Amino acid sequence: MSTFGSLFRVTTYGESHCASVGAIIDGCPPGLELSAQDIQVQLSRRRPGQSDLTTPRDEKDLVHVQSGIERGVTLGTPIGLLVKNEDQRPKDYSETDLYPRPSHADYTYLEKYGIKASSGGGRSSARETIGRVAAGAIAEKYLKQVFDIEIVAFVSSVGKIHLPSNVAPPSLTPLDGDEDNDEAADALSPEFRQLLATITREEVDKHPTRCPHPGTAERMTKRIIRAKEAMDSIGGTVTCVIRNVPSGLGEPVFDKFEAKLAQAMMSIPATKAFEVGSGFRGTEVPGSKHNDAFILKDGKLGTTTNWSGGIQGGITNGEDIYFRIGFKSPATISQAQHTAQYDGTEGTLSARGRHDPCVVPRAVPIVEAMAAIVVMDQLLIQNSRKAAAGLLPPITTLPPTMVMPSR
Amino acid sequence: MSTFGSLFRVTTYGESHCASVGAIIDGCPPGLELSAQDIQVQLSRRRPGQSDLTTPRDEKDLVHVQSGIERGVTLGTPIGLLVKNEDQRPKDYSETDLYPRPSHADYTYLEKYGIKASSGGGRSSARETIGRVAAGAIAEKYLKQVFDIEIVAFVSSVGKIHLPSNVAPPSLTPLDGDEDNDEAADALSPEFRQLLATITREEVDKHPTRCPHPGTAERMTKRIIRAKEAMDSIGGTVTCVIRNVPSGLGEPVFDKFEAKLAQAMMSIPATKAFEVGSGFRGTEVPGSKHNDAFILKDGKLGTTTNWSGGIQGGITNGEDIYFRIGFKSPATISQAQHTAQYDGTEGTLSARGRHDPCVVPRAVPIVEAMAAIVVMDQLLIQNSRKAAAGLLPPITTLPPTMVMPSR
Amino acid sequence: MSTFGSLFRVTTYGESHCASVGAIIDGCPPGLELSAQDIQVQLSRRRPGQSDLTTPRDEKDLVHVQSGIERGVTLGTPIGLLVKNEDQRPKDYSETDLYPRPSHADYTYLEKYGIKASSGGGRSSARETIGRVAAGAIAEKYLKQVFDIEIVAFVSSVGKIHLPSNVAPPSLTPLDGDEDNDEAADALSPEFRQLLATITREEVDKHPTRCPHPGTAERMTKRIIRAKEAMDSIGGTVTCVIRNVPSGLGEPVFDKFEAKLAQAMMSIPATKAFEVGSGFRGTEVPGSKHNDAFILKDGKLGTTTNWSGGIQGGITNGEDIYFRIGFKSPATISQAQHTAQYDGTEGTLSARGRHDPCVVPRAVPIVEAMAAIVVMDQLLIQNSRKAAAGLLPPITTLPPTMVMPSR
Amino acid sequence: MSTFGSLFRVTTYGESHCASVGAIIDGCPPGLELSAQDIQVQLSRRRPGQSDLTTPRDEKDLVHVQSGIERGVTLGTPIGLLVKNEDQRPKDYSETDLYPRPSHADYTYLEKYGIKASSGGGRSSARETIGRVAAGAIAEKYLKQVFDIEIVAFVSSVGKIHLPSNVAPPSLTPLDGDEDNDEAADALSPEFRQLLATITREEVDKHPTRCPHPGTAERMTKRIIRAKEAMDSIGGTVTCVIRNVPSGLGEPVFDKFEAKLAQAMMSIPATKAFEVGSGFRGTEVPGSKHNDAFILKDGKLGTTTNWSGGIQGGITNGEDIYFRIGFKSPATISQAQHTAQYDGTEGTLSARGRHDPCVVPRAVPIVEAMAAIVVMDQLLIQNSRKAAAGLLPPITTLPPTMVMPSR
Repeated sequence: MSTFGSLFRVTTYGESHCASVGAIIDGCPPGLELSAQDIQVQLSRRRPGQSDLTTPRDEKDLVHVQSGIERGVTLGTPIGLLVKNEDQRPKDYSETDLYPRPSHADYTYLEKYGIKASSGGGRSSARETIGRVAAGAIAEKYLKQVFDIEIVAFVSSVGKIHLPSNVAPPSLTPLDGDEDNDEAADALSPEFRQLLATITREEVDKHPTRCPHPGTAERMTKRIIRAKEAMDSIGGTVTCVIRNVPSGLGEPVFDKFEAKLAQAMMSIPATKAFEVGSGFRGTEVPGSKHNDAFILKDGKLGTTTNWSGGIQGGITNGEDIYFRIGFKSPATISQAQHTAQYDGTEGTLSARGRHDPCVVPRAVPIVEAMAAIVVMDQLLIQNSRKAAAGLLPPITTLPPTMVMPSR
Repeated sequence: MSTFGSLFRVTTYGESHCASVGAIIDGCPPGLELSAQDIQVQLSRRRPGQSDLTTPRDEKDLVHVQSGIERGVTLGTPIGLLVKNEDQRPKDYSETDLYPRPSHADYTYLEKYGIKASSGGGRSSARETIGRVAAGAIAEKYLKQVFDIEIVAFVSSVGKIHLPSNVAPPSLTPLDGDEDNDEAADALSPEFRQLLATITREEVDKHPTRCPHPGTAERMTKRIIRAKEAMDSIGGTVTCVIRNVPSGLGEPVFDKFEAKLAQAMMSIPATKAFEVGSGFRGTEVPGSKHNDAFILKDGKLGTTTNWSGGIQGGITNGEDIYFRIGFKSPATISQAQHTAQYDGTEGTLSARGRHDPCVVPRAVPIVEAMAAIVVMDQLLIQNSRKAAAGLLPPITTLPPTMVMPSR
Repeated sequence: MSTFGSLFRVTTYGESHCASVGAIIDGCPPGLELSAQDIQVQLSRRRPGQSDLTTPRDEKDLVHVQSGIERGVTLGTPIGLLVKNEDQRPKDYSETDLYPRPSHADYTYLEKYGIKASSGGGRSSARETIGRVAAGAIAEKYLKQVFDIEIVAFVSSVGKIHLPSNVAPPSLTPLDGDEDNDEAADALSPEFRQLLATITREEVDKHPTRCPHPGTAERMTKRIIRAKEAMDSIGGTVTCVIRNVPSGLGEPVFDKFEAKLAQAMMSIPATKAFEVGSGFRGTEVPGSKHNDAFILKDGKLGTTTNWSGGIQGGITNGEDIYFRIGFKSPATISQAQHTAQYDGTEGTLSARGRHDPCVVPRAVPIVEAMAAIVVMDQLLIQNSRKAAAGLLPPITTLPPTMVMPSR
Repeated sequence: MSTFGSLFRVTTYGESHCASVGAIIDGCPPGLELSAQDIQVQLSRRRPGQSDLTTPRDEKDLVHVQSGIERGVTLGTPIGLLVKNEDQRPKDYSETDLYPRPSHADYTYLEKYGIKASSGGGRSSARETIGRVAAGAIAEKYLKQVFDIEIVAFVSSVGKIHLPSNVAPPSLTPLDGDEDNDEAADALSPEFRQLLATITREEVDKHPTRCPHPGTAERMTKRIIRAKEAMDSIGGTVTCVIRNVPSGLGEPVFDKFEAKLAQAMMSIPATKAFEVGSGFRGTEVPGSKHNDAFILKDGKLGTTTNWSGGIQGGITNGEDIYFRIGFKSPATISQAQHTAQYDGTEGTLSARGRHDPCVVPRAVPIVEAMAAIVVMDQLLIQNSRKAAAGLLPPITTLPPTMVMPSR
């Protein structure tokens, strides 16, 4: 359905060409200073028309807060908000509409509902993500203020063009092809860990591709322009880091932190893949190399390496959480495609309309938003447990294997 | 929490050394013929001690059905079931217990709960998955009988040893390194599509590794034995296909079919990565090559290729659904590891105990079970919508762009 | 939280003086003809200022549909809608604001959230129910069209003035005071059953009190006017009937039909009591008199009497569902009250502002709306089960005690 | 479905004649000292065969804890538990089985599921409540230890025999019949408030009826014996008080405290009515008499009267919460009843079997259990909010109407 979250709960509405798209955000802590501008910042990073790498559809995407905030402070009640669809007129009927766009949601929506919006992507449009980005901005405001949690996503590949392997996520770091050689490349190179530790949105936004490595960003730009000129499209990956997450978040067993993160990310349109920490690469490295040894850091256990990506047993351990998401090449292309109409008639579809040749630059704030929503929801659930357990007297009868020793 | 699903709902309980592990399965359709043996088959495929590739812990894992079935037929009421822990005695205290096992859940469980089970993995133990496998077997019985849905998982890699690229999932098929060359290798080689279309559990079970390619299976065996002998561990990937799923399953927007599938898979212990259809590879192939053209098949639209993996816009399209999951190398190894105790004291941990050197052979029925649970739950939700919509009169006033034309 | 329902799901937002109040209705069947006017009808029955029995606050309460409907037909996607608060300016600070209004939500909202809206009832305002009424109108459109389900609520008492006992719900029919006499008055008098069977909204709306018995309505009017003139308030009860509900709705065990109905009704502001069927009266009548004997009606089992109120074992049986809700006297009164300020200082509060001297006339469409939402949600859940079970082959091996015999 | 609660979540399974009945309790705070005996106490108060006022079915109802507790302390993981059905053999087929018992769940279960358990009540049996009572006992252990919350239910009426009006809940206190007289009897007589404030389970259990007023208890006993001897049944009411609940519990808007309480209570078999605080009586008393004036108590606002029953605006205010539930006369009676068989054939049913002539004495611990579950769940949710809000800096910019002044 259109609701995500348990205690921090986001419900969205809206199609590509209806009056508005919006969301209700329920469960925001009361007493948080929050302005429309706090939300607008991320909406503006998501909006179309930011550069010639994105769709020319022009939407200002101004947020209108309806409820839940008074005099700049949250009341703890649901925050209703909406963004008007400037371009809301369903288009006239055209012959291209006889074709379900290949690999788009046209066909499956009709199979599911027996009816679909007449124009554009309808509910499958990326405009639906506006509500998510707004909700994420609200969660982030709290997480940043109280825990100094920082969430930064960036483009790590476009087509075959990846970040250089020293600053790339583990799965992109080549291992020795010798299957009897267990010496894994240290995928978490110092440079990559440094990148995770220090990258900021300002740096990410320096280049329209949102790739933080200038040389790579330039090559990505050319790749996207090439796709655009060929009336084609290209995919890419987004990598995201979440810093300063407290340990203990994530609910065994079905709502493990990485499980909810995976659901959240794979619910973003056009996603096909997700990996956290060492990801697919972690399947190739023996346990003796892959295990993250513990070490005391500032009076608390931390790990020397971080193949785990900040999550162990489905629960955060306080280290940086990092993950990578694969976005397929957009399905809507203007190039002629041989395919079939709804009625089965084969023919050639030359789709009209405006579309992104590559979605990853604009996907960056959406990934950040979904990450913020997951952290916030899991934090509120763990808050509850900690508060409840903290009121109990200490247990003195248990063996030392069952409780944390004092340090 | 420990509950998954909306209308077909599974709740599990149990730790590694308590009296029993079990589950309540709520929402099973009434009137289904179902025996304990239907459930036992998959439990036995999951149980430890099946071969010398797995842990020597010996558990028969016999299921005891408590409720919800009478005279071999489901009543529609919750099915309670349990499997006794034969080996339930918590172990005596030992010095190794002073160490949280690196990359295991020991530390994070303590951080979360402030207390943990004294022995073994506690709630993070793979024994928790027994309830899931039982629930999956129930779902499968229905899905097979009514829709002929078949779910088959198999081991696609162990360490660096992968299925040969002609029968491997897309991400393992090498693309030309030339970033200006858009001619993608046809990752969905005829052999791989054939494998997806025909693979059976019987074939998978022919080899203890559960890899269906004999030569590769032998190499995998050696790799696992090598890890075992080195008191080390190794990871791997499982690929799974779901055949004959009706079109229209999956709930926009947060409960997209692939999103719930991702959550389900990433909730299995030791998973680090998930991809569906073309997965990460799909990010590198231009839209013009990646789009699955429509074609009429048996009076219904199908696709000529299947990069989408049977899901478009979060909704199934009737084609084979396939996905791949990465399992990291098990954290518990007997090899000495330099790490820190709970109190921060550095030292060397030489873990005792029995463990799997590689989890993927035993993960196969767990993956199948979680897949079955997701399909079943989404099917019941879509059932409801279709039944409700089917009672409405046909809409005659809509333009042809909004409704499915008759074929 | 602010979400109700499982498959037909309503989420509301809004306070008394924010920009708008509204709702997202998720899970509406696709292909339903639906206009804003369908929704407006019930909103207009709920709006303030309808007669001099209600608050003089003047709100037109025009609904603005944002999404989910195109060319007058539902798409199956979430329906976003809102109603602007014409009177949205928070009021200036006043000395009366130092007092939490006795028996109002002022104090408890502050205790819960640590902050509250500066004016009016904030989130506890009855304006929140606008979203519910809109959602109910959508559910009703479907239920009426497909099942001819009719939901009619009416005012059954104001203060001590009740419907005459021959047309009153069971609990208002006097029993013999002799505790050894088991001869219960037939609380379900023919006249009352006739009223349940035939009452329409048109009849209910003939009188501003929404009491369908003219003489009683006049006395109620006087009672309300008397309360108004005394700057006081008075409570009342609303009785509601749901006709033509299919048998089989209601989910054992925690989501029994009457349990969800009770939650729905007791979530309406100012409610203090709920009873279904024979209600409290049913506790006094021996089983031999209270049991509803079965009888064949139109080829299906029905009951000769209906003390059960159409629900047995938490599941609907096809007979009329009727229930009664008690609304307390409104807490906001202009009369001076001796009470304490937030800081504990005792004093006299003379509340300003506009309020209803009696809420029951305007509660009628709210009760109907919540009833429609419950029926719709339970119907969709049972739809799913029936569709799933209907695809299984008939079971031929069971004894006749376990299956319905053919008639 | 069979799950109740959001953060403290109970899932039950079991029919009257299957192997066992049981539950999984998820979300119990970790670190709570808890023994099987803590649970057994309430199960033994619920079990049949306690006196000659209850069913002769003899079940010892010993609880077997499966998981979630080690060395007498909760781990925070799901607590699985079960109680064996000693008397689990489905009975032989008999002619009486051709009849759905009037006002029982036989007919509606068949309508819902198309199949039903062959013997007894199946899932609708009161044996299902065993899991609830166990879950409630766990919640209570926490609530008592940490907040000194006390939950005591007692029988307030059997048939027409009620507690004397000076110690009876408000709805049983006669008001002046003069509809123009606003002088309401003070339903919350000092004696009743005293009873609420001091009643204990020990006192309640002094008499087998669980009515705390000796003279009334004797009359109730005779009434139940009379029903039993007449092969008939009789209903009654249970009143319950919850003391020491913190203010601030209850979630606007659909999960108001009284709304979840109503759902919980109306999900208990045989319930037909619920009222909280002044209940139906509160509809007859003008606001000026009904409002609970505030007063400073021990440095915190309290109320002088308590018509509200400890809940205002759906949120607890710290005063005693009290409510009353109506249980109908049991449907299963041995007396001959004229009714119809499943196939419509009219005839006479003389039901066999053991049953309670009156359920209210045994309902007492079930009511307490459901109350404990509701309090616990709402407490955990509010815990989360308070913990989150408590980490924010104080807001200094708001007018005094929006925040609680310091006292």
